[in-house]
Parts: sequence; C-alpha cells; structure tokens
Amino acid sequence: MSTSPTLFAKVTEAFCCLPGVGPKTAQRMLLHLLERDRDGGQQLSNLLADALQQIHHCKGCRNLTELEVCEICTDQRRDPETLCIVESPADVLAIEQAGIYRGRYFVLMGTLSPIDGRGPAEIGLDQLANRGAEGIREVILAVSTTVEGEATAHYVAELLRPLGVTLTRIAQGIPIGGELEFVDGGTLSHALAGRRPV
Amino acid sequence: MSTSPTLFAKVTEAFCCLPGVGPKTAQRMLLHLLERDRDGGQQLSNLLADALQQIHHCKGCRNLTELEVCEICTDQRRDPETLCIVESPADVLAIEQAGIYRGRYFVLMGTLSPIDGRGPAEIGLDQLANRGAEGIREVILAVSTTVEGEATAHYVAELLRPLGVTLTRIAQGIPIGGELEFVDGGTLSHALAGRRPV
Repeated sequence: MSTSPTLFAKVTEAFCCLPGVGPKTAQRMLLHLLERDRDGGQQLSNLLADALQQIHHCKGCRNLTELEVCEICTDQRRDPETLCIVESPADVLAIEQAGIYRGRYFVLMGTLSPIDGRGPAEIGLDQLANRGAEGIREVILAVSTTVEGEATAHYVAELLRPLGVTLTRIAQGIPIGGELEFVDGGTLSHALAGRRPV
Repeated sequence: MSTSPTLFAKVTEAFCCLPGVGPKTAQRMLLHLLERDRDGGQQLSNLLADALQQIHHCKGCRNLTELEVCEICTDQRRDPETLCIVESPADVLAIEQAGIYRGRYFVLMGTLSPIDGRGPAEIGLDQLANRGAEGIREVILAVSTTVEGEATAHYVAELLRPLGVTLTRIAQGIPIGGELEFVDGGTLSHALAGRRPV
C-alpha cells in the first residue's frame, strides 16, 4: 500500500466536482475514457481548459460567452425593442431551443437571496438600471415561479416601472401534454385565474 | 445566428463522450463548472490530460497504472503465491475495497468474445501463459457470471490446468442482505448446489 494516492485515484476525485457524480460514477467515467475513448477524453480536457479560460460574462446581457459581447446581443436581425429577463444561461438555451423568441436577453445569473448574500448588485440589477430604457418597448420577466423567483420578478418590476416600458410575465398554467388530474393545486389555481376567452 | 458553433456548444458536446451523459446533463455540468467551480474544472482538465498521457497497462498484471509495474505487483507484503483473475480495473478496485484479499491480480481487460474480435490474445492470455506457474500456488477465477464470463473462466481454466496450480472460482450464491424471495432462480440453484456444512 502506498502513502500517496495514485494518479487514477486523483483523477477519479477530480471528476467528483461534476454535479451528480459520485466516486463510483467518476471511476466509471475515467475507465471509459482510458479504455475506450482516449481521443474524446483528450478533446474534453483541452476544450474544458479553453472554456474556463475564455468564457466569461457578456458585457451586454451577462450571459456566458467567449466574445466580449455575445452573438445574441450583436445579432442585428433580432428585435432590440424586446428584452427577456431570465435567471441563468440554461434558461436562454431553453428559450432559444423553443425557437419562437426573437428579442434580446438579460441574464440575472441567479435570484435575489439576501440570506445567501445575493442582493440587487449580485444579480446585475445595477447594470440593468444603468442601461435604462434605451429603445426597449417591452420587458418580459421569465424567471422561475419559486419563492425567490417571484420575489426577484417583483423587485425587477418595481425597478423598471419608472422607465415607462411594458412589463409582462410569462404565462403560468398547466404544461402542454399535462393531464389535469396530475397537476398540483397551485398550478391549477394559476391556470384558472389566468383563463382566456376562446 | 452564427454558422460556427460557440465554444460553449463545443465543450457541451465534448462532455457527451462521458458514459451516461447526454446534452442536458453536459450543459448542466459545464454551467456548474463555469459558474461555481472554475478551480475544480481546471484541476479536472489538467489531471485528465495527465491521466490520458501517463496511465497505461501494468507490465505485470495489465491493470491501469501510471507506473511501469503497478503498486500491487511490486508490493512485497502481498502474497505472490495467489493470483486473482478479473475482467476489469473496476473489479480490482472493488476487491481491494472489500479489503480481505492480499494476493496479486491479473486483469483480462474484457472477456473472450470472438464475435467482437476479442480472442485469447486480446484478453492477455498469451501473457498469462508465458508467465507460467512462477511460484503461484492458487489461481482464483473472479470473472462475471455472465455467459461471456463463464466461457472465459472455462477457457482460462483449461489453459492453466497443465501448470499444476490449484484453480478456484469465487462462490456463487445469494448476496449478503439479500432476501430469499427476491433472488432469481438461477442464483438460488447455484446457492443450493454450493451449500456447505454448518
């Protein structure tokens, strides 16, 4: 038995920094790369290093990008009058995949959570306020319907109200393909309150 | 919309080479590293590159190691008279964690599977045969109880029989903590056939 851990043990431990990956999964991942996909592993190592070095926040929307200002912010074909406020880069990707939204984004990178030390400055609201109305006609609040998300939506709405832009919130209701009997009471209440003429 | 994928998209795709990781999980992993654990990500990238460059097969037992001959093979405190034959490095780790075995190993790195082009040479049986008896008293066959594992165990047993060593196979029966009613018929048959006096 050696006193220092082997390289294999050290890499296995490093894999555990990934979310949802414990020692057994880490070991399986490393064995897979070593035995079956060394090229893929090498590429992962290189690209991950590049990403950590080059990817930072966009100066326009705070989304993650390797450019100074991201491709969505500089895309002239997108509607500059509509701004969608989301919590995370994953939300931007989800909305982009839906393929219907053609405006710009602003990414909070979290929600207001004073107990965790995340105040208005930490979620970029200074930057959002400084930016002002700047030709924006509508701001869509597309944050989560969690307690923190609702509190954040409320705060952002109060912050932007003086600018005289239209403020909207994405619809809350039953998901597409959702069977009514399995939808929770809170969602049903929102769906009923938000009913629309057919 | 750009024609070339962003760095973010490229790294996400690179993460998909890990077993059990699809696009959504890959995205979550990358976002986690970029937003919450850049140091961990950097270390993962560096150690993974080291592992891919330095880890290869041990000249003694074919296990994965960064040394020419692995620590288990060179450990003088281990019993050189007992050799345990396993399928993969994961099996060595599992047996080492059980903490009861103090002999040496030989790692096949797979099972015999002519249909996939894995014959005796591919699973290192040349090396095992060349090695000869060399002071070995007992060979323990600790391969899986799958069809391929059983076929491999049979082949290895026939190969080693002329050397005059004791050949054993690890016990097959009901697992510890296993309730009898949930154990499958095949396992129960083996457990009954292998019953021992109390």
